Amino acid sequence: MVKSESPPPAAGNHMTPDEFRRHGRQVIEWIARYMESVEEYPVRSPATPGQIRDALPAEPPEVGEGFEEILADVDRLILPGITHWQSPNFFAYFPSNNSGPSILGELLSAGLGVQGMLWSTSPACTEVETHVLDWLVAMLGLPDRFLSTSRGGGVLQDTASNAVLCALLAARERATGFQSNRAGAAGDLVVYTSEHAHSSIDKAMRIAGLGHQQLRKVASDAAFAMRPDALARQIEQDRRAGYKPCLVMATVGTTSSNAIDPVAEIGAVCEHEGAWLHVDAAMSGTAALCPELRWIQPGLELADSYTFNPHKWMFTNFDCNAFWVADRRELVRTLSVLPEYLRNAASDSGEVIDYRDWHVQLGRRFRALKLWFVIRHYGVEGLRRHVRQHVALAQEFAGWVQQSSQWELAAPAPLNLVCMRHVDGDEATRDRMERINRSGAAFLTHTRLADRFVLRVCIGQRATERRHVTRLWERLEE
Amino acid sequence: MVKSESPPPAAGNHMTPDEFRRHGRQVIEWIARYMESVEEYPVRSPATPGQIRDALPAEPPEVGEGFEEILADVDRLILPGITHWQSPNFFAYFPSNNSGPSILGELLSAGLGVQGMLWSTSPACTEVETHVLDWLVAMLGLPDRFLSTSRGGGVLQDTASNAVLCALLAARERATGFQSNRAGAAGDLVVYTSEHAHSSIDKAMRIAGLGHQQLRKVASDAAFAMRPDALARQIEQDRRAGYKPCLVMATVGTTSSNAIDPVAEIGAVCEHEGAWLHVDAAMSGTAALCPELRWIQPGLELADSYTFNPHKWMFTNFDCNAFWVADRRELVRTLSVLPEYLRNAASDSGEVIDYRDWHVQLGRRFRALKLWFVIRHYGVEGLRRHVRQHVALAQEFAGWVQQSSQWELAAPAPLNLVCMRHVDGDEATRDRMERINRSGAAFLTHTRLADRFVLRVCIGQRATERRHVTRLWERLEE
Repeated sequence: MVKSESPPPAAGNHMTPDEFRRHGRQVIEWIARYMESVEEYPVRSPATPGQIRDALPAEPPEVGEGFEEILADVDRLILPGITHWQSPNFFAYFPSNNSGPSILGELLSAGLGVQGMLWSTSPACTEVETHVLDWLVAMLGLPDRFLSTSRGGGVLQDTASNAVLCALLAARERATGFQSNRAGAAGDLVVYTSEHAHSSIDKAMRIAGLGHQQLRKVASDAAFAMRPDALARQIEQDRRAGYKPCLVMATVGTTSSNAIDPVAEIGAVCEHEGAWLHVDAAMSGTAALCPELRWIQPGLELADSYTFNPHKWMFTNFDCNAFWVADRRELVRTLSVLPEYLRNAASDSGEVIDYRDWHVQLGRRFRALKLWFVIRHYGVEGLRRHVRQHVALAQEFAGWVQQSSQWELAAPAPLNLVCMRHVDGDEATRDRMERINRSGAAFLTHTRLADRFVLRVCIGQRATERRHVTRLWERLEE
Repeated sequence: MVKSESPPPAAGNHMTPDEFRRHGRQVIEWIARYMESVEEYPVRSPATPGQIRDALPAEPPEVGEGFEEILADVDRLILPGITHWQSPNFFAYFPSNNSGPSILGELLSAGLGVQGMLWSTSPACTEVETHVLDWLVAMLGLPDRFLSTSRGGGVLQDTASNAVLCALLAARERATGFQSNRAGAAGDLVVYTSEHAHSSIDKAMRIAGLGHQQLRKVASDAAFAMRPDALARQIEQDRRAGYKPCLVMATVGTTSSNAIDPVAEIGAVCEHEGAWLHVDAAMSGTAALCPELRWIQPGLELADSYTFNPHKWMFTNFDCNAFWVADRRELVRTLSVLPEYLRNAASDSGEVIDYRDWHVQLGRRFRALKLWFVIRHYGVEGLRRHVRQHVALAQEFAGWVQQSSQWELAAPAPLNLVCMRHVDGDEATRDRMERINRSGAAFLTHTRLADRFVLRVCIGQRATERRHVTRLWERLEE
């Protein structure tokens, strides 16, 4: 271990409240300056593999170091290895927004340091979460069946990957008469989703022991949305072969192209077949804050579970996924294990929610605090205003693409994601993307649609204004 | 939605950097005061079911509110519903420590707002994590096979529940010749753990589709540690019945009583049987910072995976679980799914780690930052000093129990957890616990050992000093 030359006098002691005040203000100031300057950094980190590690000392420090030294190293050692998701020129993947109120909610949660595995281990952690998730049902115009005051209810998960896993586990249990937890996953259960669905369903199939060969990728239409007729036909074929439909995952806003599956028609098939309907609206669910965009919502009244990520487009820093079920008893029965050391009077009374039974993890932090801060800071009206601005910018951008002689749309642009390709072909598209990414002026990523290399421009970063979007378009047209 | 009477002038706008400075300092000050006063609150929240929710407005705010108002509501509405895990009088469950450097690391991570699913989405997020987990191998005296520079490597997960799930999935794949992901979980795989192991293994068995009827709870000895002879016998019996051993989970410090399973002997059985050995040292792994406590480590050189929680006893706020595997290829092969929209040059080169392939989730935040802050602030020497103090206090406490005419030890107290029962029987034990918990002076929880109701006193909270422990003992003797 490296010996420090001159250890600070109180090396290795706990930070006192006064030291915390001083260093806390330093970090707040650091972040405020980062907010002010984030636009100046190359958006995608130019670091090469191993570069960041090579600058770190090989051995851990034997003696504690001063906080100023650590914070200086963030500038010196960490920043060069940061891809700036909070840059207004970040148009890659999906946004992963933070915001002032969200950061401060996360800070307060870390400062309180509660662990909310049970209602009794911090009642506020559970009750604020239940309450805020009920608020979101109203804010997004979700069906009442997802309210905690009905038979359903919501929970915060870390990611949509865990949300779909939990949906799949509950669906697996329901489809086996609640036997798969005891006896293992049944070999006759089949799951359906579109060929454009997120990879998390593939991963969940593996994890849940169903096997990805039991996952059917249903054909999509010209707009890359799942075809309900193809779904019905595939189920019929599987039934004839002795399989049983377990779950169908519909997507409201696919990752590749923001395609909106026809949830109502898919839901009708699910209802007829007795299959669990899970709806993944990871980024696009936020759009439903705006009544005029609620055309994405029909059919949700047929869903057994629904999920979207406030940590994408709703200014709540990662991780924060919202997940609702229509019947909480199915979920809790699937995921509850009660050892003696967790028993307590409140749980035994049956009057409280213990969220540990709503997800894979046992422990959980006070995630709802930042979401509560965000909703209160912005108000529903404020959140709507920012979402509308992003959608309007994306629609304007899509119009430029349509009028361009160099570019063409590669998919419909229903909300805030524009998919485009260069008229000169895949290499030209890739070349433009690489050039912009290398320059650091913006960050874009790609997908494949209809076997073509496609550039994705997702407009949803908190600080993105019209000038960033026009500048991006100028670079693409150069 | 509730209409606010007088919205602030910029209601619903993004918080400016200057507003963030001002409100950030307010939250820092709030936390510093909380650190100074946490001892004064009743440790276990006295809230009754529904009390916190009932005080919250039924409708979300239509118009954004001022930050001071939100922060005032934390005092008014949230604090009464907090069970104070950071109180020095918290002796329940296991500790879930935060600390100044950890809170500030979490804050900085929220402020940077990066999403590290791929190396390329922020190289520093991946490389600092790999580096710090290699540091921990040295700090804890773990076998070199867990170093990233060997065939193994470490990753941060949220909880030990997800760590054991990932271990089980990789073990399931290995035991089936990497067929279970495709074809579903096999019905002949059996998993073994002690009857005192954590419930997360029961849950993982259900999730992974193996079924909990395939989990064998091996008998333990008088100190509640797994009996290797009983393990070998059970495996032999299962083999004769046509089953195949898949994984054995050994525990270094059980939740109930801190029992230390004989990992070396269990590992020898695993080696002979070709079973995956997973070692769960959730709280007690931290003890290995101290060379004189490394008697808990023998046998780890036989482990395929190992996990402990810096978020318990190592002053790093929840969530932060460290998980190592001896062969990272098995884990990555088990959990990797690569859709087109995540492809990038760095991943294709094979030169980088993409941690999304090391756990269930796709997205991940910069969790390593707080761990890096903690290790640098304390230094290895500082961390050791605090761990030694907790162990010394617990040993002193155990001595008092042994000399008491009212209380007796209910299990060996090898480290920082003391299990005790009242000589007048279970009702007396429960009565003393309830009385102290109701008083708010301290918070204790229970377990059952040898069919007796047992009080657990876990000494590991950051701010716990000798005076808190002596005061607890006085109350127990009252």
